[in-house]
Amino acid sequence: MINASACGVIQTARKHPDRIGTVFAGRNGIIGALLEDLIDTGRESDDSIGALRHTPSGAFGSCRYKLNSLEQNRREYERLIEVFAAHDIGYFFYNGGGDSADTCLKISQLSETLGYPIQAIHVPKTVDNDLPITDNCPGFGSVAKYVAVSTREASFDVASMAKTSTKVFIVEVMGRHAGWIAAAGGLASSSDTELPIVILFPEVEFDRERFCQRVDELVKHYGYASIVVSEGVRGADGKFLSDQGLTDAFGHAQLGGVAPVVANMVKTDLDYKYLWAVADYLQRSARHIASATDVTQAYAVGKAAVEMVLDGANAVMPAIIRKSNDPYRWAIERADLNLVANVEKMRPGEYITADGFGITNHCRQYLEPLIEGEDYPPYSRGMPSYVRMNNIPVGKKLAPFEL
Amino acid sequence: MINASACGVIQTARKHPDRIGTVFAGRNGIIGALLEDLIDTGRESDDSIGALRHTPSGAFGSCRYKLNSLEQNRREYERLIEVFAAHDIGYFFYNGGGDSADTCLKISQLSETLGYPIQAIHVPKTVDNDLPITDNCPGFGSVAKYVAVSTREASFDVASMAKTSTKVFIVEVMGRHAGWIAAAGGLASSSDTELPIVILFPEVEFDRERFCQRVDELVKHYGYASIVVSEGVRGADGKFLSDQGLTDAFGHAQLGGVAPVVANMVKTDLDYKYLWAVADYLQRSARHIASATDVTQAYAVGKAAVEMVLDGANAVMPAIIRKSNDPYRWAIERADLNLVANVEKMRPGEYITADGFGITNHCRQYLEPLIEGEDYPPYSRGMPSYVRMNNIPVGKKLAPFEL
Repeated sequence: MINASACGVIQTARKHPDRIGTVFAGRNGIIGALLEDLIDTGRESDDSIGALRHTPSGAFGSCRYKLNSLEQNRREYERLIEVFAAHDIGYFFYNGGGDSADTCLKISQLSETLGYPIQAIHVPKTVDNDLPITDNCPGFGSVAKYVAVSTREASFDVASMAKTSTKVFIVEVMGRHAGWIAAAGGLASSSDTELPIVILFPEVEFDRERFCQRVDELVKHYGYASIVVSEGVRGADGKFLSDQGLTDAFGHAQLGGVAPVVANMVKTDLDYKYLWAVADYLQRSARHIASATDVTQAYAVGKAAVEMVLDGANAVMPAIIRKSNDPYRWAIERADLNLVANVEKMRPGEYITADGFGITNHCRQYLEPLIEGEDYPPYSRGMPSYVRMNNIPVGKKLAPFEL
Repeated sequence: MINASACGVIQTARKHPDRIGTVFAGRNGIIGALLEDLIDTGRESDDSIGALRHTPSGAFGSCRYKLNSLEQNRREYERLIEVFAAHDIGYFFYNGGGDSADTCLKISQLSETLGYPIQAIHVPKTVDNDLPITDNCPGFGSVAKYVAVSTREASFDVASMAKTSTKVFIVEVMGRHAGWIAAAGGLASSSDTELPIVILFPEVEFDRERFCQRVDELVKHYGYASIVVSEGVRGADGKFLSDQGLTDAFGHAQLGGVAPVVANMVKTDLDYKYLWAVADYLQRSARHIASATDVTQAYAVGKAAVEMVLDGANAVMPAIIRKSNDPYRWAIERADLNLVANVEKMRPGEYITADGFGITNHCRQYLEPLIEGEDYPPYSRGMPSYVRMNNIPVGKKLAPFEL
C-alpha cells in the first residue's frame, strides 16, 4: 500500500502545478534524502503513476533507518537541510509506521531548531496496525484479508482431507508484538461458514497443555482444526516460541519459524497428522487479494497529506477516523504528530476471547470493514501487470555524504 | 478443482434425468463406497451445486486409499459390487491422480472379473500435473498461477527492501517428485517484468556451491534474488534436502521444511539477509486466485465424463488435448485408462534450462496458457462465499463393513 499512498501524493501534487513544481522521491526513503539520491517522479508518465495504485511494495525503495535526535546527530539534520535547500524542497512527506513518524516529527521541527522552512507530513502505513489515533493503518487491511481468506481456504482443504490424512493445519503470520494480523485469521470463520480456528496471539502467554487440549477438542468435534499462529508468540519464560535453539546435523543453529514448533507439539502431544505453512512476505505483498477499503484509504491519506501541506499544515498525520461500523463510515482528519510518534497503540486485549484462542464480536466488528471489497489489479497473460518506475535520478549538486 | 469437476458431473447428470436418476457421492471417496456411506447429491439445490464451481477443496471429502489388486483383496471388490447393486449404481466416476486412476481401472474391470455391469470413468485432477496423455491436470493451473503471482509479488517486496534489509527471499512449493509447480515460479519473471529468480527442481541434484554462486551473482547484479524451492529437492546423497536431522533443545527430531534449510545456507555461505515462506496448503486451496483456464477445464472433464458414460464408454479418462499454444486451443478426448494408470508422465527435464535453475521458453509456452484468466469467486462482507453441502446420507441397506 506504500505505492497506493505514493499515487495519492503524486497525482494530487500534479493537480497543483502552481504550488508544487515536482515531487522528488528519496531513493530508499530517508537514506536517499541524506545521500542526495533523489528520483524525479516528474519523469514518470501519468499512466505509470496511476498504476502505482495497484502495484505492491514501494516503487522508490525503502529503508530501515531511524534518525537519532538532533543532539545526537546534528550532522544528519544539517545535511538534510543542505539537500532540501539545494533542490528547493519545502514539503516533506514520509510514509511508514512508528519509527517513520518519529523521523518525520524531527524533520517537522527543522524550522524551529535549525531555521529551515519545511512542512513535514507523516503518511501512515504499517501492516502491524500499531499507530495511535488512526482507526487502522494502510497496508493492514489487505494483509488481514489475505490471512482471513487463506485460512478459510486452507480450512476447507483440511476438512476434505481429514478423514484419512491431515487433521491439523498451522499457518504462521506476521506481527511480532501486536496480534492484529493473527486476529484476522478469526474472520475465516463466520456465522454462515463456521470453522474450527485456534489463534495464538503474541499478547497471550503460550500454554502448551491448554493449547493442545483446545486443538484436541476441536478435532474431536469437527474432525479437524486450523491454527493461526503469530510469529511473536512467547512462552512463560518470555522467549519467542520460535526460538527453540534448533541445531542441524553439524550443530549449526537453525532459523525458526514458529509454525514447525507448534506442528511438533501437535505431533508429539496429540499424534494428529498436520501440515504447516509460513506466509511471511506472501501475506504483505499479496496485492492480488487487496482489500478495496484498504486501497481507498491508502490513496486517501496520500491525497490528504498534500492537501494538508497546501493548507499550511506541519507536523501532522492524516488519520482515518471511524464514524460508524455498519455501514463503515470514515473521514480523514489531522492528527498531531507529537501524539503519534513514539506512542504505543492500545493492544488488542479486549479483542481476544476469554480463553485466549479467538476473537470477540467487538474485534469482528472492528476488522470486518477493513477487509471489505476486492480491488483487483489488471492482468496480462495470466499475470498481474505491476508497474516499475524509471527512477531517473535528479542531478546532484552537493558533495557526497557518508551515512 | 475437485469441486469444479464435481459441479460438471452433477450439472450434466441433472440434464439427463431419463438416464441418470441421482448422483451419489462416496463420503471421503472410495472409503464411502466401501462403507456404504453415500451422500445423496439430489438433496442439494441447483444453486449449491452451481457454487461448487467456485469453492475450493472437495465438498464430499476425500481419502488416500488405494485398492489392492483383485487377487490380493477380493473382499473389497465384492463389497463394492454389493453396494453398487443395493443402490442401483451403474456409472462410477473417480476423481484424482495416478493412484485414483489405478483404482478406477480396477473398478472398470468388475464387469469382466466379477460379472457386475459397471462403467467407470476417471476424472483427472492432481496439482502434481503428472498424469500421462492429458495436456495438464485440473488443479495444477491454479496452483501454478498462485505460485507465479505470489513469487512476482514477493519479489517486488524484496526489491524495495533490499537496500538495507532483506536481499534474498525463499518460497517453498509443493511437488515431491515433479518440478511443475516449482517451474511455475519462473513465470513470475517475464519479458516486460524481468525478475531475478532461482528455481530448485526435484529433478536437479542440488549443488550447494553452484546454488550459492548463482544467488550471489543475482544479488550483486539486481540487488536481491528470489528462490523458488520444491519440497522434493535432493542432494547428491539422494536424501531430501529438508531431511536435515534437525533436533530441538530436548533432542527431539524436528519437522523440516526445505525453505529454512536453504535460508540457512544463504546466511552461512553468503551472509545475506533473507526471509522464507512455506506455501503448503495455501497454494493448492487458493481458489481466490484460480486460473480461469483451469476452472473451465476442470468443469469440462467432469461434464465430458458424464457424456462419455452416456455414450457407453468404460475404462476411459477425459483427457485435455492441446491443439495450439497461442492462442491456446484444446479439446477433450477419450484416453484409454490402461494407458493412464500406473504410467509415469514424462519429467520436465527439457523444460529446465542448462544451468538447472530456470525454465526454458518451451516450458513458458507450455505453462502460460494454463494460468490464463482469472475466475474470481463471489464475495460477501469481504470474504469469498464458498458453499458447503448438506451431505445428507443415503439410507443404508447392507450390513456394516470393516475396512
